[in-house]
Amino acid sequence: MITSTANPLVKDLVRLRSTRHRREQGRFLIEGRREVGRALAAGIPVEAVILCPDLDPISPPDGVRVIEMAEAPFRKVSARQSPDGTVAIAPLLPTELDRIRFSRPALVLWLEGIEKPGNLGAMLRTADGVGADAVVVSDPATDIHNPNVVRSSQGALFTVPVAVTSTEAALNRFAADGIRIVALTPDAPTNLWEADLSGSVALAIGAEDRGLTRQALAGAATRCLIPMQGTVDSLNASVAAAVILYEALRRRQPS
Amino acid sequence: MITSTANPLVKDLVRLRSTRHRREQGRFLIEGRREVGRALAAGIPVEAVILCPDLDPISPPDGVRVIEMAEAPFRKVSARQSPDGTVAIAPLLPTELDRIRFSRPALVLWLEGIEKPGNLGAMLRTADGVGADAVVVSDPATDIHNPNVVRSSQGALFTVPVAVTSTEAALNRFAADGIRIVALTPDAPTNLWEADLSGSVALAIGAEDRGLTRQALAGAATRCLIPMQGTVDSLNASVAAAVILYEALRRRQPS
Repeated sequence: MITSTANPLVKDLVRLRSTRHRREQGRFLIEGRREVGRALAAGIPVEAVILCPDLDPISPPDGVRVIEMAEAPFRKVSARQSPDGTVAIAPLLPTELDRIRFSRPALVLWLEGIEKPGNLGAMLRTADGVGADAVVVSDPATDIHNPNVVRSSQGALFTVPVAVTSTEAALNRFAADGIRIVALTPDAPTNLWEADLSGSVALAIGAEDRGLTRQALAGAATRCLIPMQGTVDSLNASVAAAVILYEALRRRQPS
Repeated sequence: MITSTANPLVKDLVRLRSTRHRREQGRFLIEGRREVGRALAAGIPVEAVILCPDLDPISPPDGVRVIEMAEAPFRKVSARQSPDGTVAIAPLLPTELDRIRFSRPALVLWLEGIEKPGNLGAMLRTADGVGADAVVVSDPATDIHNPNVVRSSQGALFTVPVAVTSTEAALNRFAADGIRIVALTPDAPTNLWEADLSGSVALAIGAEDRGLTRQALAGAATRCLIPMQGTVDSLNASVAAAVILYEALRRRQPS
């Protein structure tokens, strides 16, 4: 039982809030009963789960290494205001694009340059919701292992295949696999209801402020927009992703 | 020009981050060039705009009272990490339900018990996007004047009519106006693609964790769910609102 906030493990784990230290240590934290439960169910090879008996932790399955921690050091490790007593330590996820296998017809969410961890996490959650083949993240400004990605994904980070790559590599892979790119962009000639979303598609969403790069747009077979009927000129990026993902899923229903 | 962080106005404005002080002072802050611009364009009767010449503030229209503020006190007033030099002080918005007039057929977003300001703001932004008649917020756990609502709405708080009321009063008003309630709830008999969204409807979304109350569900003519094809059992509340709002807008398009 770790009782001191000065314990070296506590210090190492607190550092995992920064991308640099996650890379250096080669691991990240998965916080929350639900998130850790989904990571374990998905077969993520966690190093250990840290449980705080004073809070309300999970009962981990057999074979998982458990570290017990008193409330003071646990609250230091936790990135939450109301921790639920459960954190796992896991090696950084494999994110190579060539590990991903696409089904036919493929439904892929391609995110380029996304900045906000909360958006990235919500988009993973929605991608899980539509049963997407994968989320391809290119040139991101945020790390997929960020605690807020884990949290806002509600564990979908572990259930949906995720690749992190460059825009060029993403374009090459989609071309090689015959996956058509449908770009969501405000200056498109058609709206999403008229757009061709059939067959194998990668639905492309750009950075929150700047949208998709020219390079990504140049690779798109189709550009479409989400109609805006009011004053505001765009939707939140994770909201926009959900609207097009669910429109694609709707079209794929047997009628 | 206010130069001191000890200036009494600075202290009063910093207090406006709390709901209690907003109620006591009867006013709130609107931060950001875009948000203040939309508030002014929407005719919100701002008391004053506070501009920080060292940052990059708007040029306010004639007739608006301007208070200039040096960077140190401005950063204290700002709730942002990277302020853009523009904050407005405005009286609390009128939120009485009986001020709202619905068009025919009405498209209303009804939010019950929403807790997170970021979700509420994103839902206002999406409601503006679909051209909704109004957003009715009942029994909220967050204040619509919260700085994060203003921010994540991108100013849609000022462009979409918003009412704050009780669930009972919302039900009574929808019944009186012949507005059918369509409740989004995971244990529904039909999915949203099969649900009747025609005519005047209030699309009802519940609190992030608990969903809609029994009282709200009992008043619904239709219950529907968003299909979930993966492991995660629900979408983010603002994402769910967007999926159903855009499905309703799609059906309203002339074919």
